[in-house]
Amino acid sequence: MTLFKKHQDTLTKAINALHARTFYAAFAEHPAPAVYGETADADGQAKFKNALGKKFEELKQQNAEGWAGQEESPYLQEALKVLYPTFSTNTLIDRAKKSFSSWRKTSVQDRAGILMESLERIKSRFFEIAYATMHTTGQGYMMSFQASGPHAADRALEAIAAGYEELNRFPSKAMWDKPMGKFNIQLNKEWRAVPKGISLVIGCSTFPTWNSVTGIYGSLMTGNPVVVKPHPGAILPIAIFVAEIQNVLAANNLDPNTCQLAADTFDRMISKELAEHPEVKLIDFTGNSAFGSYLESLPGKTVFTEKTGVNSVILDSVADADKAAANLAFSVNLYSGQMCTAPQNFYIPESGINTPYGKVSFDDFAQKFVEQINGLIDNPKAGPFVLGAVQNKKTMERVKEAESLPGKVWLKSRTFENPMFKNARVATPVVVEIDAAKKEVFSKELFGPIALLIKTKNTDQSIQLAQEMAMRHGAISCGAYTTDAMVHEKIADEMAMAATPVSFNLTGGIYMNQNAAFSDFHVTGGNPSGNASFTNPEYVTRRFTWVGHREPVVG
Amino acid sequence: MTLFKKHQDTLTKAINALHARTFYAAFAEHPAPAVYGETADADGQAKFKNALGKKFEELKQQNAEGWAGQEESPYLQEALKVLYPTFSTNTLIDRAKKSFSSWRKTSVQDRAGILMESLERIKSRFFEIAYATMHTTGQGYMMSFQASGPHAADRALEAIAAGYEELNRFPSKAMWDKPMGKFNIQLNKEWRAVPKGISLVIGCSTFPTWNSVTGIYGSLMTGNPVVVKPHPGAILPIAIFVAEIQNVLAANNLDPNTCQLAADTFDRMISKELAEHPEVKLIDFTGNSAFGSYLESLPGKTVFTEKTGVNSVILDSVADADKAAANLAFSVNLYSGQMCTAPQNFYIPESGINTPYGKVSFDDFAQKFVEQINGLIDNPKAGPFVLGAVQNKKTMERVKEAESLPGKVWLKSRTFENPMFKNARVATPVVVEIDAAKKEVFSKELFGPIALLIKTKNTDQSIQLAQEMAMRHGAISCGAYTTDAMVHEKIADEMAMAATPVSFNLTGGIYMNQNAAFSDFHVTGGNPSGNASFTNPEYVTRRFTWVGHREPVVG
Repeated sequence: MTLFKKHQDTLTKAINALHARTFYAAFAEHPAPAVYGETADADGQAKFKNALGKKFEELKQQNAEGWAGQEESPYLQEALKVLYPTFSTNTLIDRAKKSFSSWRKTSVQDRAGILMESLERIKSRFFEIAYATMHTTGQGYMMSFQASGPHAADRALEAIAAGYEELNRFPSKAMWDKPMGKFNIQLNKEWRAVPKGISLVIGCSTFPTWNSVTGIYGSLMTGNPVVVKPHPGAILPIAIFVAEIQNVLAANNLDPNTCQLAADTFDRMISKELAEHPEVKLIDFTGNSAFGSYLESLPGKTVFTEKTGVNSVILDSVADADKAAANLAFSVNLYSGQMCTAPQNFYIPESGINTPYGKVSFDDFAQKFVEQINGLIDNPKAGPFVLGAVQNKKTMERVKEAESLPGKVWLKSRTFENPMFKNARVATPVVVEIDAAKKEVFSKELFGPIALLIKTKNTDQSIQLAQEMAMRHGAISCGAYTTDAMVHEKIADEMAMAATPVSFNLTGGIYMNQNAAFSDFHVTGGNPSGNASFTNPEYVTRRFTWVGHREPVVG
Repeated sequence: MTLFKKHQDTLTKAINALHARTFYAAFAEHPAPAVYGETADADGQAKFKNALGKKFEELKQQNAEGWAGQEESPYLQEALKVLYPTFSTNTLIDRAKKSFSSWRKTSVQDRAGILMESLERIKSRFFEIAYATMHTTGQGYMMSFQASGPHAADRALEAIAAGYEELNRFPSKAMWDKPMGKFNIQLNKEWRAVPKGISLVIGCSTFPTWNSVTGIYGSLMTGNPVVVKPHPGAILPIAIFVAEIQNVLAANNLDPNTCQLAADTFDRMISKELAEHPEVKLIDFTGNSAFGSYLESLPGKTVFTEKTGVNSVILDSVADADKAAANLAFSVNLYSGQMCTAPQNFYIPESGINTPYGKVSFDDFAQKFVEQINGLIDNPKAGPFVLGAVQNKKTMERVKEAESLPGKVWLKSRTFENPMFKNARVATPVVVEIDAAKKEVFSKELFGPIALLIKTKNTDQSIQLAQEMAMRHGAISCGAYTTDAMVHEKIADEMAMAATPVSFNLTGGIYMNQNAAFSDFHVTGGNPSGNASFTNPEYVTRRFTWVGHREPVVG
């Protein structure tokens, strides 16, 4: 109760924001010394460096059955050589089972307090997590800090808030008094929110904390023990989260195995074994569609997936073509297109884009777009930090192959120098023009810095293609530029039917790639890009079951 | 808006009851002339009789492609010869698709008003529906009236209320104002609740309206067109519901095909074809586990199932053994055990049941139970009406086979005379003693009037077996008798972990078979007896998707 009281005010604010869907952030996204302390950055970096080449011994999981780790820095192209304790599936499941009873019997308020306390502890490690994220994902420093630190913590808080609210949605008791004419039937009824059981959270290599914490905190809040299976390429950031959760559990005399890390390696992946274990009831997954769909098909499991999609930009009419091009260029450059929300297909009418100062032709817009991309890359104070590095070698190959797509190559991918990491694995966007008739070319996700400018007959065809891509192949985001109210509503309606949120007419410092806690439902769950959303009510309600018992009132 | 205002008060009461989980009923369950009119019963019976041997021409579905119907009365063992219009799957889907656009764009308030108006119209047909239910399901008159009329209407209202609330859970718009230090980013955000698409509701033969209306009204309320596929043995009751929904749709200039009846026949069942159609996005199903599990496995569909289960009664200690035996005897006799909530496995310790007046031995309790069953059957004013008739011939065979189960037959199934229907297909309960070691015998649903008295070592074993049955084979209800607070909590906890609601110490006029709207979550969704619940939040939220669009504030 002490921890609950300590954090109650923040929890209330979070619940209110969840409902008002207005801006709220409990954790400051700017790594400002004024907020986090003068030495926080340097200390975090030193801690990160100190962790390299060693065993990660912070976890409270006893008797490691092995030690392993194969992370590699995309900036250094060198192994981090951090070793994590490994455990057999049976050990992990047995320990999760043992922890279940005490955790599910911990009150909803105490669970909320404990989980929020863990976030406060994690806050003091945001910089360390940021460096760990940089050197596993290749994200730039600012994104690493924001996405893996404060934004992830806000997402976790959102899941706590949503869970807390749903668990309190119905009374725990009520007297049911039914008039029967000459007498009443009176029953005492009580309802229990019963957690479903062991929860498995499978992480991805590009957003190792942001994409996993909602599942972890959502499952824990609703009383389920959690096994965290990170991507073997990005373990350290989430390992720090798990360690801090375990610290707070232990400090409150609870079993630290309520939240376990299940690290594995590329040559011996354990996701499938864990997922198929009959005791695993809940699965959260971020990653490729094939594995996500396989998980969704497992009988008897409640599965939450974020898979892949084909994100579109519909260009109809703009107030300022340069500002639109600049905004989209940033979206494409940001983390070298390795975001699930990054735009890929840009639909531009063959007759061009309407502006207040006349038509901007297809070619002219393409030219502006390419110039803006180059301008950003070639700005040494911005480019290298916005682009970051490329997480996976396969992405490099995909970018190279994109130059052979059937269409005019407006911009070839090239390299650039990162002033801090000479050996960084980098790739700038490739931009290719594709005819709308060549649907097979753009009907799939081309993960990485690849932008396709698709020449359509008109905006109607652009909308139709964007909708079709989302419905058939999934989409997590959509950008649209139009100054026409009718077209605006048509895009809003058609893309809504494809369960795809649209960012209209973005210019300046806000991008279609960004989804915020408390206001944006990240991944709607309504198209093939995933079956769940951060964080709508069912994201937490499906983690527990309402069970009602009843008994006659003894009169 | 007119209809919404007309029904707003009832809707508010329903939403309040849904949250308070206290007693609420909008429709009177007693077929009293004072409530429904002096001639309502006779008129309803006359209308039912008049419908026999004819085409059912009330539906507004144009250009029937055929006429068919194979319903048979379990009371008369004769065909009803009512013919329903039949349509190909493509016609049904095409028409549903065409209706979708106008229905989804109908406001949430208007949808609620229209659907509640349909219930008011249906109320005037409760008696007709009651006779149609008797002569398709074999239910007694009272159950037919209550379950298919007022209770079903309350369940429908509950789904409307739950849907209405969830659709209004989040604001449709908000201004998102994020401080960035020197300036603020301001976005206008809007959220749309996007219906998932065509909804298929597959009915069962024993509760043709009660089990289907939650899906029908839940899907319609959330903006989805519905195709209602009744069991070929029980069409007429739900056909009347569909006809009245179509009447209100047409009266409000909406497409009546927004809710279509898809009747079929035993020799040409269309459930699979409909379910597998790519345009069908939502499926509700009540019926056998094999087909339910097949439906759950269909990729890309949101599926709500109520399947089969093995319901247990745990007998530990009782205040009054005769009252407990009487209550359970009623539960077993009621509709000849053809309820998904009927008890099957009765766990009794070999040492007997504790009472304030000493132990009641296993045999003594068995004897009391059998006597109470016989007493009810042989009461000519109650027995035939409580037992009703047997819907399916296969149930008769199953009851006969139960006498060959390996154990002492305490009571053989027998016949009795229904004073109104000499030719009724009837079967009284068979009661067999089974040793707890013979788990294979009682580890499956034996649908119909079959009660197994399972001799256990002690109450701990009883609880363990009841939990195991529920976890492995599903359970929708559980009865328990105990006067010991520790045992009480153990049963409550262990059965909650198996997602099974427990009715404790029921005596008198309330039975474990009964699940009420607004307070009981019927089928929890947490064990193999089904993956959904009437009506928790996700029962409606999974029928639509929250999609948020955003755009910078123009300052």
